[in-house]
Amino acid sequence: MTDPVLYIGNKNYSSWSFRPWIGLRATGIAFEERLVPFDMAAGNPAFRSFSPTGKVPVLIDGDLTIWESLAILDHAARSHPEAGLWPENPAHRSMAMAMSAEMMSSFPALRSACPMNMRRTRRPIEVTPALQADVDRIQSLWSDCLRQSGGPFLFGRFSIADAMFAPVVNRLDVYAFETSAVVADYMAAMKALPAWREWEAAGRAEPWVVEEDEA
Amino acid sequence: MTDPVLYIGNKNYSSWSFRPWIGLRATGIAFEERLVPFDMAAGNPAFRSFSPTGKVPVLIDGDLTIWESLAILDHAARSHPEAGLWPENPAHRSMAMAMSAEMMSSFPALRSACPMNMRRTRRPIEVTPALQADVDRIQSLWSDCLRQSGGPFLFGRFSIADAMFAPVVNRLDVYAFETSAVVADYMAAMKALPAWREWEAAGRAEPWVVEEDEA
Repeated sequence: MTDPVLYIGNKNYSSWSFRPWIGLRATGIAFEERLVPFDMAAGNPAFRSFSPTGKVPVLIDGDLTIWESLAILDHAARSHPEAGLWPENPAHRSMAMAMSAEMMSSFPALRSACPMNMRRTRRPIEVTPALQADVDRIQSLWSDCLRQSGGPFLFGRFSIADAMFAPVVNRLDVYAFETSAVVADYMAAMKALPAWREWEAAGRAEPWVVEEDEA
Repeated sequence: MTDPVLYIGNKNYSSWSFRPWIGLRATGIAFEERLVPFDMAAGNPAFRSFSPTGKVPVLIDGDLTIWESLAILDHAARSHPEAGLWPENPAHRSMAMAMSAEMMSSFPALRSACPMNMRRTRRPIEVTPALQADVDRIQSLWSDCLRQSGGPFLFGRFSIADAMFAPVVNRLDVYAFETSAVVADYMAAMKALPAWREWEAAGRAEPWVVEEDEA
């Protein structure tokens, strides 16, 4: 068995790539990484050669091609039960899935106004009511989990829920949102993960600048 | 144990409600339904009393509140393994999750131009290139699955993937998109489900009209 191949975009900007990458790396699941930089002006034509949607990330595991971050993480959780990617407690697992799905379907103001950016110097941005509502909802979700679990991660041990929200940890940080103490501790725990540091250092070292993601 | 409670919006229009409802009903999982009609002008304030996001659907299962259609379906799949909500074959299950996640994150042109509408008389709509691209991608996804599985549902037996795409079956039907034979057969199988007929009849009988969903 060869390791599965994870295709990703730029580490500085690709929030959807970061989710499965940190999920697999933080739980010790082996994979081969293939980074294909964005070519925004041309519509990322290179992605079409390996991705059924023309988007990243994509996991190639033997004969199987899996797209969509959450599906890649769930596939890895079932292929590697020892990694503990989903919380063990069934109620926590249902909550983790609901939060992961909400991350996929929601927070449009945060996602459009505050692109993930590993290289950005921490500084605030103009905060609209819609943007503040997104940030408030996220902090309320995280706080409920962290108070119940006691931390350091959303459900105690690192799980798919943390992987799905990892790019939001970067956003709340580099766009300088005010956070409660419990949220600040959580963000510090995420940023202290060796997997986080590895991704962040690589993102910062990338030569590519995507103007539309420099808010 | 009392049955879980599924809060839903209008059956004529609420595509996100339809997904878990048909998933549970078609596989014989018992639940109590509570329909709370949309109040679009006021921002659906009633939903706030039971929903952490202010949106439907929501499942209340004992002490647990689960939001997001895909999370409700996954929770039901784990609570009721006998219902077979996820495909049994691990590769098919990963594909079903990828397709369900793509449904959640994608197809913006189809979702905005063609609201689900059980009552609409079948007639075409102006088709933009973006709308056609969404419909083409969906038909290609479905066709690949149906050719591999042999039908009648995406992975042979009815699964969460079918539940997630159920509102799209209605859309391709009532907005009169051209479909291949294999897709037409699939849509017919979906519309013949007793659960589909029950929901459709109830939706058609509703007195409420939501102007912004009448395209």
